Amino acid sequence: MRASKYHINTLKEAPAETEVASHRLMTRAGMIRKVAGGIYTYMPLGLRVLRKIENVVREEMNRAGAIELLMPVVQPAELWMESGRWEKYGDELLRIKDRHQRDFVLQPTSEEVVTDIARNEIHSWRQLPLNFYHIQTKFRDERRPRFGLMRGREFTMKDAYSFDRDEAGAQASYDIMFQAYMRIFGRLGLKFRAVAADTGSIGGSRSHEFQVIADTGEDLLVYNPDTQYAANIELAAAPCLIEHRAEPKEELVLTATPQAPKCELVAQQLGRPLSDTVKSIVLATDPAEDDADGQVRIWLLLLRGDHELNEIKAGKLPGFERGFRFATEAEILDSFGCVPGYLGPIDTAKPVSIIADLTVAHMSDFICGANREGYHYTGANWGRDLPEPQSADLRNVVAGDPDPNGGHLAIQRGIEVGHVFFLGDKYSKALQATFLDTDGKPALLQMGCYGIGISRISAAAIEQCHDDKGIVWPRAIAPFEVVICPVGANKNEKVGNISEQIYLGLQEQGVEAILDDRDIRPGVMFAEWELIGVPLRITVGDRGLKEGVVEIQARSDAAAVKVPVEQAQAAALERLKSL
Amino acid sequence: MRASKYHINTLKEAPAETEVASHRLMTRAGMIRKVAGGIYTYMPLGLRVLRKIENVVREEMNRAGAIELLMPVVQPAELWMESGRWEKYGDELLRIKDRHQRDFVLQPTSEEVVTDIARNEIHSWRQLPLNFYHIQTKFRDERRPRFGLMRGREFTMKDAYSFDRDEAGAQASYDIMFQAYMRIFGRLGLKFRAVAADTGSIGGSRSHEFQVIADTGEDLLVYNPDTQYAANIELAAAPCLIEHRAEPKEELVLTATPQAPKCELVAQQLGRPLSDTVKSIVLATDPAEDDADGQVRIWLLLLRGDHELNEIKAGKLPGFERGFRFATEAEILDSFGCVPGYLGPIDTAKPVSIIADLTVAHMSDFICGANREGYHYTGANWGRDLPEPQSADLRNVVAGDPDPNGGHLAIQRGIEVGHVFFLGDKYSKALQATFLDTDGKPALLQMGCYGIGISRISAAAIEQCHDDKGIVWPRAIAPFEVVICPVGANKNEKVGNISEQIYLGLQEQGVEAILDDRDIRPGVMFAEWELIGVPLRITVGDRGLKEGVVEIQARSDAAAVKVPVEQAQAAALERLKSL
Repeated sequence: MRASKYHINTLKEAPAETEVASHRLMTRAGMIRKVAGGIYTYMPLGLRVLRKIENVVREEMNRAGAIELLMPVVQPAELWMESGRWEKYGDELLRIKDRHQRDFVLQPTSEEVVTDIARNEIHSWRQLPLNFYHIQTKFRDERRPRFGLMRGREFTMKDAYSFDRDEAGAQASYDIMFQAYMRIFGRLGLKFRAVAADTGSIGGSRSHEFQVIADTGEDLLVYNPDTQYAANIELAAAPCLIEHRAEPKEELVLTATPQAPKCELVAQQLGRPLSDTVKSIVLATDPAEDDADGQVRIWLLLLRGDHELNEIKAGKLPGFERGFRFATEAEILDSFGCVPGYLGPIDTAKPVSIIADLTVAHMSDFICGANREGYHYTGANWGRDLPEPQSADLRNVVAGDPDPNGGHLAIQRGIEVGHVFFLGDKYSKALQATFLDTDGKPALLQMGCYGIGISRISAAAIEQCHDDKGIVWPRAIAPFEVVICPVGANKNEKVGNISEQIYLGLQEQGVEAILDDRDIRPGVMFAEWELIGVPLRITVGDRGLKEGVVEIQARSDAAAVKVPVEQAQAAALERLKSL
Repeated sequence: MRASKYHINTLKEAPAETEVASHRLMTRAGMIRKVAGGIYTYMPLGLRVLRKIENVVREEMNRAGAIELLMPVVQPAELWMESGRWEKYGDELLRIKDRHQRDFVLQPTSEEVVTDIARNEIHSWRQLPLNFYHIQTKFRDERRPRFGLMRGREFTMKDAYSFDRDEAGAQASYDIMFQAYMRIFGRLGLKFRAVAADTGSIGGSRSHEFQVIADTGEDLLVYNPDTQYAANIELAAAPCLIEHRAEPKEELVLTATPQAPKCELVAQQLGRPLSDTVKSIVLATDPAEDDADGQVRIWLLLLRGDHELNEIKAGKLPGFERGFRFATEAEILDSFGCVPGYLGPIDTAKPVSIIADLTVAHMSDFICGANREGYHYTGANWGRDLPEPQSADLRNVVAGDPDPNGGHLAIQRGIEVGHVFFLGDKYSKALQATFLDTDGKPALLQMGCYGIGISRISAAAIEQCHDDKGIVWPRAIAPFEVVICPVGANKNEKVGNISEQIYLGLQEQGVEAILDDRDIRPGVMFAEWELIGVPLRITVGDRGLKEGVVEIQARSDAAAVKVPVEQAQAAALERLKSL
C-alpha cells in the first residue's frame, strides 16, 4: 500500500467523551469514527485490524473442526419466545417491528436460530458431533454505551455452538474449543489468561473466560503464579485464613464506639487491627409470588472487617435461589432494633438467619456491632457468647491469600474477550431439538456455546499495550506490519528509489508494508505512525544513505538501529519475528 | 475438506413456496435455510459461495483503488433526515427505536453515513479523488419478500461511494468503477451485460446496470448484437418505424366495431393488420398541492396497436414532473364522453393534451377509437382529420426494431446484480459536504455510488445455469471446485488410498477439493454432488482401478472421461481451466 493512495487521517486531540486509552487512541489514529452512541464506522485502518483478528479466529475455528455458516442479524421473535429469552432478556435486547407489525430482534447471540437449525438438520447420532459458528454483527442496546469498542452497541462477535450426543461428548467439544481459544489468543500476540468463570443464569457445569491482561480491565482475575489455577474473582474460592479457632482470652464487653459506623473506624478507635473486626451485611429474600403466607426473610452475613462480600457467592446460598436484595433501613430497624453501622449477631430484636464467612467462623475474641447505636462488643466468641454459626465462602479473594493447593493467590485485572460455556440441554429442551440416538430413540442434543468479541479484542489489545505516543500493536493484528518512511526524497532521488526497493522487496516476502510517499514533514510522519502503532518503521534518509545505512526501529524499542542498505530487508524480516 | 467432517444435508423436495429455480435449488442443496420471510441462514455450502463472490469483488475494488471500511448496520435517523430520505424512502426502510426511544434505521444503503464521514474527513482537494466501499449486511423491508435470495429482506451488498473535486473527476471515477465491474463479473464466470439505465429519482447524468443474463430475469435488456449498444428497456430509445408519412388514400369513415374494445379485436373484425391501429392511453396529472386553482390535466397518449407504453419515458414528458397516474373511468367519461375501449383523438368531449408516439405521428390511414361506444374511425390522417400531433418516444423497444446506428435491436432478459450511478452533489448538498478547492474556497464534493448485490449474484448464477439435476456453478464461485468420489472402498482398499492421494495432490495445487469419505451409496452420492453443482467430479472406482483408470466428469459435460490413474491430477487441473 502507498500512503498517498490510502486514507490516513489522525487527530491531534480526541473528543472529551473518550474516557479510556483504546477509545482515545483508536479515534485519534483514525481507526474508528462515531456514528451514534455505541455505534462506529471502522475506518480503513481499523477495519484492517478487525479483519486480521477475524482471520486468525476463522483459521483456528476451522482447524478445530467447527463449520462456518452465517445466521441473520434480524431474527423472528417466535424463536426467542420458544427459548423464553424474549421475556427474560432485559432492555439490551433490541426488539423491533417490521412493516407488518411482526416482532423481531437484532441478535445479541444466536442460540435460538442455531438450535432451530439443529433440530431441522440433525436427525441421527451419526451426524454428531457438530459445531457451527459464524462471525456476524451483533447488537446489544446498552443503557449507557461507552469506552468505544469496549462497550459498544453494534459489534462483531464470533459465536460457535456445539452439538453432541451426550454430556461426555459435549465436554470433549468444550475442551476442543478451549484449546482452540488458547491458540487463537496466543497467535494474536496478547498476554491473556483463561479463568474459570461463573456459569451464572445460563447454568451448566463449566465455563471459562479468556481475559486480556490490562490494568484498566473491569474484571478481577485470581491466579496462582506457581500453578495452573486461575479464576474470575466472582468464582474463585476464598480460603479460610484461620486453621484452628483459638480459645477465648477476653470477656464479652459492651464497648462505646461513638460515631464509628464502619469497621475501619472501630478498629482505629479501639487501637485494634481491622482483622479483629467483623462486619455485618443484611440481606433480604422475598417470598415466591404464589406463596400467600410468605414472609420476607432477613439474613445477616458476617465478613471479616477487611474482606468484601462476593455477591455471586451469596447468590448461590441455599434459600437464595430466587435472588436476594439488600435489606431496607426499615427492615433493619425492625429486625435488629438498631440503625446500620452497629449491627451484629448478638441479641438481635427478632431472629435472623446468620451465615458467617469461613474465616469469621474461625475467629475468636472478635469485635462486632452490639445492635445499639454507638456500641460494639469486644471479646465476642462463638459457642460462648452466641451459637456456633452456619458458615460459607462469602468473600472475594484478597491478593496474598493462601492457595489450599500450595503457594499464594495473586490478582490482576483483565478484559473479557472470550467465553466458553457448557450449556447442556437448556436450549435443546426449550426448542425440543432432538436426534435419534443409537438405540433408535429421540434424545436431546447436548450443547456448548463459545463466544469471542472480535471488535473488543482490538480495544483490549490497545489497553494492554500503548504508550504516550500511541498504540503499540502486536504484529499479528497491526493494520500494517512495516512502514517505510523516506526522508529528504526531494533532495536525493536515491531516497525514493531505495524506499521503493525495500517496499517491493518486503511485499514480495508476504509482509504487509506501507510506503509513506506523502509529501509531509518527517516529524509529522513519524508521530503519525507512532500513534497508529505500526510495529516496525524503516527510515530511508538522505543523511543515512550517505553512510550507506537505513534506520530500523521497532515501535516497542527505545531507539533505532542502523543497518547497511543492502541488509535492510533481511534485518526487518528478522526483527519482525519477535514483534 | 472431507465430507464426513462437513455439513451436507440435501433435500429431495423443496418447500412449495420456492417459486424460482435458484430458491428451489439452494434450498434443496442445503445452501440456505429460511429463518423468516426474506431472511435466511447461509448454511456452510452457501456461505462458501457468498465468500468467494465477496473476495472477487474485494480484490477488484482494491485493484481499482477503492478503500474498504465498514459502516454500521444501525444508523441514526438524524442523518437520514438531513438527506431527506427519512421522509421520502417508503416502507422498505425499516425504522426502529432504541431503548431510549431514539430513531434509527437498518441501512438499505449508506449514502448518508459515508457523506457524513466525507464531510468530516475530507478537508482539501489534495485528498481527492477518494472512493470508500464496504461489504455489509443490508435490510430492505420488502412488502412481499420472495424468490429466496433474489428478493430477500436481509442481504449482503457491496456499496462504494466516490468523492471528487468536480464533474470531470466524478466521471473518471465512474469510468474506473465501470471497468472494475466489467472485470468482476467477467471473473465470476457469468454471462452478463452492462446496460445504460434510467437515473430515476436519484438524478444525475449517467447510470449503468450490470445484468446477469437469464430467461427468468425481471428486466428486459435491449441490445444490438452488432455494436456495443445495450440499455435497459426502461431507457432504450425506440425508433420511429416509418421514415416518411404516406399521403392519405382513404376517407375518414366512422365504422361499427361492436364488442371490440381492444386494438387486437378491431384489427381482427376489420381484417386489417394490428399495425394499422392506434391505441389510446389516458393519463392524468394532478395539480401541485399549493396550486389553489389547479385542475387535473387529462392526457391522451397514442401508441401503435402492437406497441406497449413505457411508463419511465412517459414520466419524463414535460408536464409530468410531479408524476402521473392512469385516469379514472369518471375522468375518461367526462373528457371523452365515451367509455374506455373506443377512445381516440378525434372529437373529444373536452380538450385533452394529445401526445403521439414517434411512429404513430408518422402513420397515415390509421384506425382509432371514435369516442362513441362500439365505433372506430378508419382512414384517419394527421393534418386532414385532426391537427398535427405533439410527438415523443413513448413505447418499449420491440425485438427487431431497427437501430438508427445500423442493424437491428434484440431483447433478452436479465437479473440486475450491479448498478453504478453518477450522483453529482445530491447528497453532498443536502449534508453540506464541502472541501477547500485549489482556489481556497469551499466546494461541494461530487459523488458517485456503486452497488453490487453479493448474495443476489449467487441466485442469479443459478438462474443462468442449472439443469434438471441441480446447480451448475461456474468454477469461480462454486463452493468446492472438485469432488472426489470413491466407489467400492469397502471392497478394495486401493480405492480409498488413491482417492486420498488425488485429494491431497489437488489441495497442494491450491484447488478447493472435497473428498466424499461418507459411507453412502454411489447413486446417492453422485446425485447429491450434481444437485450441489460442483464443477468437476473425479470418480475412483473399484472397477476402473482394475483397468488402471479413474473417471473425470465436468458437471456441464454429458459424459465422463476415463484417464489413467497417474494422470488424474493433471487431467483434472487441465479440465478445470475452462470451467
